[in-house]
Amino acid sequence: MITVAIAKGALLKDSVARFKAAGLDFSAVLDPDNRQLMIPSVCGRGRALLVRNADVPVYVTYGQAQLGVVGLDVLKEKQLPVAQLVDLGFGGCSMAVAVKEDSGYLRASDLPPHCRVASKFTHCARGFFDSIDLPVELVHLTGSVELGPITGIAEAIVDLVATGRTLRENGLVAIEEIFQSSARLIGHPLSLRLDRGELQSIVDLMRASEIDIAYPS
Amino acid sequence: MITVAIAKGALLKDSVARFKAAGLDFSAVLDPDNRQLMIPSVCGRGRALLVRNADVPVYVTYGQAQLGVVGLDVLKEKQLPVAQLVDLGFGGCSMAVAVKEDSGYLRASDLPPHCRVASKFTHCARGFFDSIDLPVELVHLTGSVELGPITGIAEAIVDLVATGRTLRENGLVAIEEIFQSSARLIGHPLSLRLDRGELQSIVDLMRASEIDIAYPS
Repeated sequence: MITVAIAKGALLKDSVARFKAAGLDFSAVLDPDNRQLMIPSVCGRGRALLVRNADVPVYVTYGQAQLGVVGLDVLKEKQLPVAQLVDLGFGGCSMAVAVKEDSGYLRASDLPPHCRVASKFTHCARGFFDSIDLPVELVHLTGSVELGPITGIAEAIVDLVATGRTLRENGLVAIEEIFQSSARLIGHPLSLRLDRGELQSIVDLMRASEIDIAYPS
Repeated sequence: MITVAIAKGALLKDSVARFKAAGLDFSAVLDPDNRQLMIPSVCGRGRALLVRNADVPVYVTYGQAQLGVVGLDVLKEKQLPVAQLVDLGFGGCSMAVAVKEDSGYLRASDLPPHCRVASKFTHCARGFFDSIDLPVELVHLTGSVELGPITGIAEAIVDLVATGRTLRENGLVAIEEIFQSSARLIGHPLSLRLDRGELQSIVDLMRASEIDIAYPS
């Protein structure tokens, strides 16, 4: 039995499509009435765990799922020992530093030393500000980070930006990209080592389905 | 201008009712179409920040909100320097250890040493297992912790239990209560120290509204 961890939310629909292309059909999770968190595949060979974004690499690290699909942002933030197998190409967004439009800051290095920066991704933020030698105080928030500069709890934020709509609606502007993120297929290293071909064939089919999308015949 | 932090979700309706009893009417946040995260009170004296549970004590710690309403569970988990002012009595639930119904464990001390325990509240869980001298490996999950024993990633979980329905639906049973939680009014210590009576009158009215509910005349 192959167990895969997939994330609720923005990546779900494409994750299901790519596993389907590899022979594991978990379309039942897309039913709005679905309440199940553990869903068998139509073929009976596998099952999916429907979990939060940040929990996907946890289930794969402990080998409770052999494969998983999650954004690079989560992988960089959680730093867990999983194997990155395929860049699946969907779920594209950018980890960026953003400030108030009228702040006058044009790049991250313009921020005053020891200013406060709010983020859900404090590990990524710490790495970035260390890399530009700017000491900042990080404020860890779990949601609505865009409130940070508005309330004055922080001068800047580090957050994921997809369309930029949330930033615009809150009078914020991105001034520096830290990295680009997209959905990744990840695997449990020991399961991959002990694999007799079954996992590898799924990985290969998921990689191939990416090429099909990139270069439609 | 008084700023208060209130949590989205289960505590929202009662939090709004209690602030209303103290003269600050933020009923607009209860409108299902509301998208604003910063809402002025009807009287114009205050504003509410609508944030996630875990972020309420963060905004109060930094003084961006002078008052906030949040569950004791979050306060115990986050350990931030805020003043606990009033037990508001609503949002009652229990932080509990739960296991599979058929596990045979009757109390937490029955768990095997070094077993894995999944929780969103790893700080609370660590404190509890230390207090009973049972070494366990904690697995931090951000949601659907009830999947832990089902998938085998953990033998037990530590989670909030209100009605017990989620546990029952997943074949789990609570075997030990760690503490009882309810909503608390919290304050920013320095703002309370510098207060000229305005904050204190709100605190007093919110405390009184609790007595009204407990002993209706």
